[in-house]
Amino acid sequence: MNDDSATPLIATMREIGRQAREAAKALAVAATGAKDLALRTAAQALRDDEAVLLDANRRDLAAAPGLAGAMLDRLTLNPERIAAMATGLEEIALLPDPVGRELARWRRPNGLDIARLSVPLGVVGIIYESRPNVTADAGGLCLKSGNAAILRGGSESFNSSRAIMACLHKGLDAAGLPRAALQLVPTADRAAVGVMLGMTEFIDVIIPRGGRSLIERVVAESRIPLFQHLEGVNHTYVDKAADLAMACNIVLNAKLRRPGVCGATETLLVDRNAPAEFLPALIGALLDAGCEVRGDAASLAADSRVRPASEEDWSTEYLDRIISVKLVDGVEGAVAHIERYGSRHTDAIVTGDSAAAAAFLNAVDSAILMVNASTQFADGGEFGMGAEIGISTGKLHARGPVGAEQLTSFKYVVRGSGQVRP
Amino acid sequence: MNDDSATPLIATMREIGRQAREAAKALAVAATGAKDLALRTAAQALRDDEAVLLDANRRDLAAAPGLAGAMLDRLTLNPERIAAMATGLEEIALLPDPVGRELARWRRPNGLDIARLSVPLGVVGIIYESRPNVTADAGGLCLKSGNAAILRGGSESFNSSRAIMACLHKGLDAAGLPRAALQLVPTADRAAVGVMLGMTEFIDVIIPRGGRSLIERVVAESRIPLFQHLEGVNHTYVDKAADLAMACNIVLNAKLRRPGVCGATETLLVDRNAPAEFLPALIGALLDAGCEVRGDAASLAADSRVRPASEEDWSTEYLDRIISVKLVDGVEGAVAHIERYGSRHTDAIVTGDSAAAAAFLNAVDSAILMVNASTQFADGGEFGMGAEIGISTGKLHARGPVGAEQLTSFKYVVRGSGQVRP
Repeated sequence: MNDDSATPLIATMREIGRQAREAAKALAVAATGAKDLALRTAAQALRDDEAVLLDANRRDLAAAPGLAGAMLDRLTLNPERIAAMATGLEEIALLPDPVGRELARWRRPNGLDIARLSVPLGVVGIIYESRPNVTADAGGLCLKSGNAAILRGGSESFNSSRAIMACLHKGLDAAGLPRAALQLVPTADRAAVGVMLGMTEFIDVIIPRGGRSLIERVVAESRIPLFQHLEGVNHTYVDKAADLAMACNIVLNAKLRRPGVCGATETLLVDRNAPAEFLPALIGALLDAGCEVRGDAASLAADSRVRPASEEDWSTEYLDRIISVKLVDGVEGAVAHIERYGSRHTDAIVTGDSAAAAAFLNAVDSAILMVNASTQFADGGEFGMGAEIGISTGKLHARGPVGAEQLTSFKYVVRGSGQVRP
Repeated sequence: MNDDSATPLIATMREIGRQAREAAKALAVAATGAKDLALRTAAQALRDDEAVLLDANRRDLAAAPGLAGAMLDRLTLNPERIAAMATGLEEIALLPDPVGRELARWRRPNGLDIARLSVPLGVVGIIYESRPNVTADAGGLCLKSGNAAILRGGSESFNSSRAIMACLHKGLDAAGLPRAALQLVPTADRAAVGVMLGMTEFIDVIIPRGGRSLIERVVAESRIPLFQHLEGVNHTYVDKAADLAMACNIVLNAKLRRPGVCGATETLLVDRNAPAEFLPALIGALLDAGCEVRGDAASLAADSRVRPASEEDWSTEYLDRIISVKLVDGVEGAVAHIERYGSRHTDAIVTGDSAAAAAFLNAVDSAILMVNASTQFADGGEFGMGAEIGISTGKLHARGPVGAEQLTSFKYVVRGSGQVRP
C-alpha cells in the first residue's frame, strides 16, 4: 500500500466509522414512527428526484462504455426501477418494528423475571457491486432495524448511489435522525474495501453482495464477522412418486423464470426408478423452452439435443439458460449428489410421497428446502419478510433470506427484587 | 513452522476434521433418546472411573510443579468435582432436545407453508485452558445439540481431559453413536491450535474459553467464525432511589460470592444524588468483608481505607477481592461510564424507580442487564438453560449464556402443492 494515499483514506474511513458508531446509538433508540417517516420521506424523494437520479445514472453509464449485457443491465436505472426502489422503502416502512420485541420471557423459581429483547446489531457494513438499488434496499432495511450502515457500492455505480443516498438523507433529515446513520463511502478507490474490512471497532457485521470474486475477497480479508451470501448451486429433484405435469411446470419455472437470480435451479436430478417417460419429458420441455441441457449418459440417451456434462458442470452456478441433468438413485442418491456438489442455498423435491419428502427434508442441509414448489420462491419478499439484503448460506445468526429481523440481535433483561445468588 | 513436524500435525488435524464432519451427519439426525442415553451413560462412567480420573489428574499435577493458586485450583480434580461433572451431564440429558423444534411457521397467500426448524450447527471447535471439566460440559452440550465437537484443552490438563473423554466415548458407544462425534486433539503441541483455526471446511464455529491472551490469539488467527467470550468488566450502579440495605446486599454478593467468575461485579457506580450515607455505607460494607476498594476522590473521602483508583482500574477485570468505586451523575453518568469502560457482559442497576430502571435498560448495550439483582446470576444454569459453555459478549448468533439451544441454527422448509413463481 502506498503510504501517501493510504493515510488520508484510512483517516476518512475511520471518521466514517466513528460517526456511524455514534449515529447507531441514536438509531437504536429511535421511535418506530421516526424510522418509518424517514423511509416514507426517502421514498417520496426518490420519486421527486427521478430526473436527478437518471442524470447521475447517465454519467455512470457514460464512464463505463465497455459494459454490456448483464453488467450493463444491472447498472442501468429507469423510471420503473426508481419507482420500484421507492415502493420497496414504503413496504419496509409497513413492516413491524423488529427492535424492542420480547422474544421470550420466563420466571425462575427464585422470582427472577428474565426477558430476551431484540436490539439492533449496531453498524452494518455492506459491500456490493454495480446494482444501485442495493443502496436503497440495504439502507432502508438497516434503518428499519435500527442499525447504522456504511455502504460501499461498486465504483461504476458511484454517481447513481450518491444520488440515491441524497434521497435517503432527506428522509433522515425529515425524521430528525442523524445523516451519519446511512453513509456511502465517498471514494471509488478500491482500497477503501480493504480498510473497511479491518475496522473491527466500528463495524459489527459485513454483508457482501456480489459475484464470486467479491465474496472470496471479503471472506479472505475480513476481520469482521460476515453474513455470507454464497452462490446458489440449487437442485430440483424429481422423485419417482412425482406428478409429471407438476414436475415439468416446477422445473421450467425454477430454471427459466429468471435464470439470473440466486434461487434459480441449476441442476435437475431425476429418480432412476421413475417411469421411463419422466427423463425425456423433463429434458424435452426444457430444450423446447430454449434452455441448453448438459446431461449424464442417461440424459444424452434421452434426447439428441443434450450435450455431455463435465464434472465441473455439477458445481456450476450458470445464472443463465443452461441446466445440468442427472439420473440418481432415489432420495438417497439425490441427497448424496446435493451434499457433494451443492452450495446449501435452496434445494427442492417434487414428490407425492410424504415419506420421500420427509427423508429429503431431514437429510439435506441447505438454508431453504422446498417440497412441490419452485426454487425461485427463495426470496425474502416471497417469504413475507417484505425485503431482503440477500440469502445467507452460512449457519450462524442469519440463514436464508436476510431481512430486517435478521439484522437484529437481542439482550437479556433480568428483573429482581433484591435477589442474591446463594 | 518446521515442515518436519508441521506436516504430520496438519495431517492428523485434518483427519480429525474429516471424521468430525462425517460424525456430525449422524449426530444431526440422532434420536433424542440416543443422545440422552449417551449422556447418562457417560455420567455413570465418570462416577465409576473416579479412581482413573484422579490418577490421570495426579499425573497432570505432577507434570506442572510450578503451578499455584488459581491455576492449580482450576486444574485439580477431586471426588466432588467429578460428581459435579456427572450431574452436569445428567442435567443436560433432562433438557428438551434443541434440534428439530419448529421455531416459526406461517402460510403465504399463495398457499405455501413455511416453517423454520432448528438444526445443529455442524462441527464445533472448543479451545480452552486448564479446567478439565470443560471437556465434559462442552462435550455434553455439543452432543445434546446434535453437533460434533473437536476439543482442544490446555496441555497441562491433557491426561485429565483424555480420561474424561474416555467416559464420553463409553456413552457414545452405548448409544450406537460414532466416537468421532467428540474428539480430543491428541497432542499437547500448541501448534495444533493454529491448524484448527484454519480448518474452515471442517469446523463451523470456534468457541474459545480462557483468559485474555487465549482469546486474543484466537480472535487474531481464526478464519472460522467465533462465539467470543470476552472478559466481564461488569458494573453495579446504585441509583439515588435504591433501598440501601438491598444495595449493600446485592453489591457484596455481586463482588464477593465468587470473585473469580466472569459475572462478578468489578466496578461499583454510585449516584451522586443519592443520600450522603450511601457511598460510605457501601464502601464500608465491602472493606469490612475483606474487599480491597480502589476509588475516585469521593470514595477516598468516604473511607480512609480506600486506595486511589488509576485510569486503568476502570477497565480492569480483577477476578479477585478488589473493586473500583466511582460517583456518577445519575443513570446518564452510569451509562456513559459503562459505555466507555465496560465489556458489554453484565451490568446492573439497583433502584426503586421504574423510570430510572427503564432508562438504564434502554441505554446500556450489554448482553445481560439486571435490575435489583446480583450480577453473579449471569450464568446459563441460573437462567434455566441447564448448562453453558460460556457467556458470549458478541452480538451475532449467540449473546449471553451459550447453552444447547445457542449451539443450533435453523433451516426453512417450504411446502407447496405445485406452486410456481409468477
